[in-house]
Amino acid sequence: MKNTAGKARVVIEQVKPSIDGGAFPVKREPGEKVLVQANIFGDGHDQIQAILKYRKTGKAKWLEISMKHISNDTYQAEILVQEPGLFEFTVLAWIDHGLTWLNGFAKKAAAKEPLQVEIALGRAFLEKMAQKRRLSQKFIQQTIAFIDQAEQEQQILPLLLGEQIREVFEKESLRENTTQSQVYSVLVERPKASFSAWYEFFPRSSSPDPKRSGTFKDCEKVLPFIAGMGFDTVYFPPVHPIGQSFRKGKNNNTTAKPGEPGSPWAIGSSAGGHKAINPELGSMKDFEHLLKTAQGLGIEIALDLAYQCSPDHPYVKEHPQWFRWRPDGTVQYAENPPKKYQDVLPFNFECDDWQNLWEELKSIITFWITKGVRVFRVDNPHTKPFKFWQWVLAEINNEYPEVIFLSEAFTRPKIMARLAKIGFQQSYTYFTWRENKAELEQYMHELCYSESRDFFRPNFWPNTPDILPMYLQNTAYTPSAIRFILASTLSSNYGIYGPVYELLENKPVAGKEEYLDSEKYELRHWDWKNKTPFHHLMTKVNQIRRQNPAFQTTFNYLACKTDNDSLMAFYKATGDNKLLTIVNLDPVHKQSGWVQLPLKEMNQEEGQILEMHDLLNDKTYHWDKEWNYVELDPKETLAHVFKITPYKR
Amino acid sequence: MKNTAGKARVVIEQVKPSIDGGAFPVKREPGEKVLVQANIFGDGHDQIQAILKYRKTGKAKWLEISMKHISNDTYQAEILVQEPGLFEFTVLAWIDHGLTWLNGFAKKAAAKEPLQVEIALGRAFLEKMAQKRRLSQKFIQQTIAFIDQAEQEQQILPLLLGEQIREVFEKESLRENTTQSQVYSVLVERPKASFSAWYEFFPRSSSPDPKRSGTFKDCEKVLPFIAGMGFDTVYFPPVHPIGQSFRKGKNNNTTAKPGEPGSPWAIGSSAGGHKAINPELGSMKDFEHLLKTAQGLGIEIALDLAYQCSPDHPYVKEHPQWFRWRPDGTVQYAENPPKKYQDVLPFNFECDDWQNLWEELKSIITFWITKGVRVFRVDNPHTKPFKFWQWVLAEINNEYPEVIFLSEAFTRPKIMARLAKIGFQQSYTYFTWRENKAELEQYMHELCYSESRDFFRPNFWPNTPDILPMYLQNTAYTPSAIRFILASTLSSNYGIYGPVYELLENKPVAGKEEYLDSEKYELRHWDWKNKTPFHHLMTKVNQIRRQNPAFQTTFNYLACKTDNDSLMAFYKATGDNKLLTIVNLDPVHKQSGWVQLPLKEMNQEEGQILEMHDLLNDKTYHWDKEWNYVELDPKETLAHVFKITPYKR
Repeated sequence: MKNTAGKARVVIEQVKPSIDGGAFPVKREPGEKVLVQANIFGDGHDQIQAILKYRKTGKAKWLEISMKHISNDTYQAEILVQEPGLFEFTVLAWIDHGLTWLNGFAKKAAAKEPLQVEIALGRAFLEKMAQKRRLSQKFIQQTIAFIDQAEQEQQILPLLLGEQIREVFEKESLRENTTQSQVYSVLVERPKASFSAWYEFFPRSSSPDPKRSGTFKDCEKVLPFIAGMGFDTVYFPPVHPIGQSFRKGKNNNTTAKPGEPGSPWAIGSSAGGHKAINPELGSMKDFEHLLKTAQGLGIEIALDLAYQCSPDHPYVKEHPQWFRWRPDGTVQYAENPPKKYQDVLPFNFECDDWQNLWEELKSIITFWITKGVRVFRVDNPHTKPFKFWQWVLAEINNEYPEVIFLSEAFTRPKIMARLAKIGFQQSYTYFTWRENKAELEQYMHELCYSESRDFFRPNFWPNTPDILPMYLQNTAYTPSAIRFILASTLSSNYGIYGPVYELLENKPVAGKEEYLDSEKYELRHWDWKNKTPFHHLMTKVNQIRRQNPAFQTTFNYLACKTDNDSLMAFYKATGDNKLLTIVNLDPVHKQSGWVQLPLKEMNQEEGQILEMHDLLNDKTYHWDKEWNYVELDPKETLAHVFKITPYKR
Repeated sequence: MKNTAGKARVVIEQVKPSIDGGAFPVKREPGEKVLVQANIFGDGHDQIQAILKYRKTGKAKWLEISMKHISNDTYQAEILVQEPGLFEFTVLAWIDHGLTWLNGFAKKAAAKEPLQVEIALGRAFLEKMAQKRRLSQKFIQQTIAFIDQAEQEQQILPLLLGEQIREVFEKESLRENTTQSQVYSVLVERPKASFSAWYEFFPRSSSPDPKRSGTFKDCEKVLPFIAGMGFDTVYFPPVHPIGQSFRKGKNNNTTAKPGEPGSPWAIGSSAGGHKAINPELGSMKDFEHLLKTAQGLGIEIALDLAYQCSPDHPYVKEHPQWFRWRPDGTVQYAENPPKKYQDVLPFNFECDDWQNLWEELKSIITFWITKGVRVFRVDNPHTKPFKFWQWVLAEINNEYPEVIFLSEAFTRPKIMARLAKIGFQQSYTYFTWRENKAELEQYMHELCYSESRDFFRPNFWPNTPDILPMYLQNTAYTPSAIRFILASTLSSNYGIYGPVYELLENKPVAGKEEYLDSEKYELRHWDWKNKTPFHHLMTKVNQIRRQNPAFQTTFNYLACKTDNDSLMAFYKATGDNKLLTIVNLDPVHKQSGWVQLPLKEMNQEEGQILEMHDLLNDKTYHWDKEWNYVELDPKETLAHVFKITPYKR
């Protein structure tokens, strides 16, 4: 028993938001409010005071906000986290004997009870306050003097029952025998962590000449086209030298024919490893030039972080201890029996030299950061240890908080969640396979309203080089356009793998969700100048996203009821920016039905006229009912994105 | 980075059952199974092994059970906690390279791949096992020898693909780079903590002579009557000397007339304090004799632990530092302005001498334990610090694990929960005010299926000396009988305050939920020999409770649907003991309707004939449908308590 430990009579429980009891920081967006709640109570009937203390981690001075009792022993207060950084907060509470006295005094005065002793008690509190707390010194001294000089109790009453003394008692509380919660943290990252439009393409497909590999110089010519459509992040599959041993041929053939370029994910050759550039794409200088060009266009280049080696990677000779060697003197390649990936050697993270391995892998990231890269798409993070990621992301983000890592983990839910908890800024999702309204709404609800909302930032991709979903296979414009609209309006982070997407190059390997003649294994050539209908759609949607804050977060999603399962409707609002999106999920037939406006959440009453301006189609309607009729014919209009404003004559 | 810390690739999350991240032990009953679940996963596709380790705390040897993967990365195992005590458990998991190899080997063998290197790998695992693990030494050595001597791969295959080698690999796993969860604890207390029937009466009302106070000797004559009705715990309001200063008179009058006995909760006079006996009840010897008599009848005497003092308590003079003194030289009495309780002085738990105060309060408990008391009903624990309770209950229960404390906290939900978490074995509940079916079912669901199930053991009281609920006021037999049946069948712990209950002494103070002419403030005299209809009912119900294990826990409660809101039905089963209780909540009218049997939970199919033996009324019915008709007329039958068995011709 410590000397005063037993005196603290207040209990603080269930502080929220918190992840796994405070093991990981909660993620929020710049400018967002963090609503902190806690169960706080003491024994008996005494008055409690609770404050929320917070600061930017590392900075010395704690700020304080008073927490308000909401109901049922729950207290709350809000912190505004304006700029990126790691914040921390803690809850402090105590029995406030001064306020307890003041409340009792008021009741006794009202009941006309004798007050002499009570006034003496109050005077004692004031004296203690004068000694301990300094802010209201003058008022406190005056009050004491007034009490001492008063000839009758009645003279003092107005002062002791007034608002000012209550404020002073609240502000200058003696804070005796306080209880404090543990310290929790909130991570605020740069806006792009929450709001980004990605475009993935293979640099080697950028050549205007079908006969040769595209280069970084070719990429520079393609970038204005992508920037023009409003994308802000361009992600390249690995740009490093590709191994020769067990090189994969066209359509994942186990042997490559001479001249076939191999999979970019089979990293490393005599030309270098993860810190080198594939000579076919150009030089390091070319890459640096590309980064600058991209920057000028408002585009960030995201590199692929694939921690694996081709058998020809310099690491295999230089650091044989990082691999798992077999009795026959070969290195264990990646396999999931009976599947074999002989062109790819995984690292053995359980090797005795794991510390040096970790450091080297970290140095790959810092190498590219030094070149100017700030965004990484991490290949299969779920096949490398969680502890490694937790360490390396913290190491990097401590030094470079602006670096964003996108987790490419299409795997089981708890694993995807863990990767987000331990630091990945963005995550691929199951959106790719959520097609009908019930699936989409259930998934959005999970992302926005379950505990994962505090750490998991979804990034919606209708396709990737690894996934051509059934829904898009062998189809014309409409299905792909619907999926694009859904991805870009439901989620503030989204991406597409192009130009196959816009060019409707969607033939699959028979019976699989894979692209036929995939760029992963061969050079492809695209007509980048071909302005398909997607050009208009993507440009328009990205423009709407930039102009409307409500599309710049995912978590303001609110499902709206419709009476037709082919019509999906949802409301998103940020401040005064209110958007209602209605998508016809049926790519073929006209669908019509009634859509319910969330009037309560809109702080709106039925009968008030709303101006519904369709930002996609530039038409305006006027609604004054809760339920409203809509009709969407895929031949003309796939979706409405209504900006809602009060109607002014 | 510790030298091997980075090698542990398995994550263990969300271990359950646990309270507030393991801050408090989970409570279970003797003979109960503890289902432990955890999220366990690693990176990649390697095989994981997980085991649950557990032991009785303090005993050296950990026992182990293998955890099974259920679905979605959740693993589970069950521990049987047979006897009372504190148990602890932890989860251990690791990547099992041996099993990963074995699984891959089987697939490769099936695919007719070359196996030479694979066999060498397997042999290496066996050698490692032989060095590290000893249990299957002989089999392992034989297998290695067999591999070495075999002339052809094909000879070895049956052995390496057999069941025995898989068992050995599972059992003798190398357990490299393990991950371990924190240690969680499970508290198992003696059966009475979970199953008890309480009867409260005022010892001073036990006199056969209305003109004098009852004594412990009189109580001894009353006990056989109470034991005969099947109660096992008799709880006395405080038995200590009662203060004279500010003594309360009849009906809570602020001044007592000469000869009025005062409230037993105004503890302490010149005759002594919390360790003394009120001389009007007898001597300490009489009390000890009473304890023995009770014991002979299968009854435990529960004392009231009311940590407060009359102004005449010896503590006030001996330890003035334990009280709060006012400027006028008086001690602060209990108040909740404008209400005053001048006959009661609270302790000042924030005094500088709090450590000695805690020790003295603890010594009161040990004093009565030494006399033979093992059950305490704690008066208003929510007006003393949680930290104090957490300390004192741990101190007492560490030394005397059989001691049971019942928390008399009729207060806000989070406070009641906290008291249960920090150690109270049983708690009063809101049952007293839950009257209609929806309220009762909602409350039972909360008690049995929310997180509180892990720490909160309800004790249902239809009345107490402080509470005569509206529902029972000025009524005849039926309402009280219904409340008795509900309390005693819904909850395995229940109690009544008698003999007012059986004698239907239920006149209230006008407009309040308080008894008129309460025993709290005056001597009352009861006709203990008057065998009311309650005598039969209570005897019968307590007998049924003792004979049917399904009534000996609360948490097996399962609501059954009925089509009439006046008919409440619930199913309880423990092993083969299956009970269906149906209560007519309407004290006046006959109610009939259809009741649904929970066939799925009963592992029963519609059409199989069940024998429904009504244990209350000794009638038998045969049901073979899911929905069955019942009719309850309060004039004849208030409830059915069906024991369900398969019908045998």
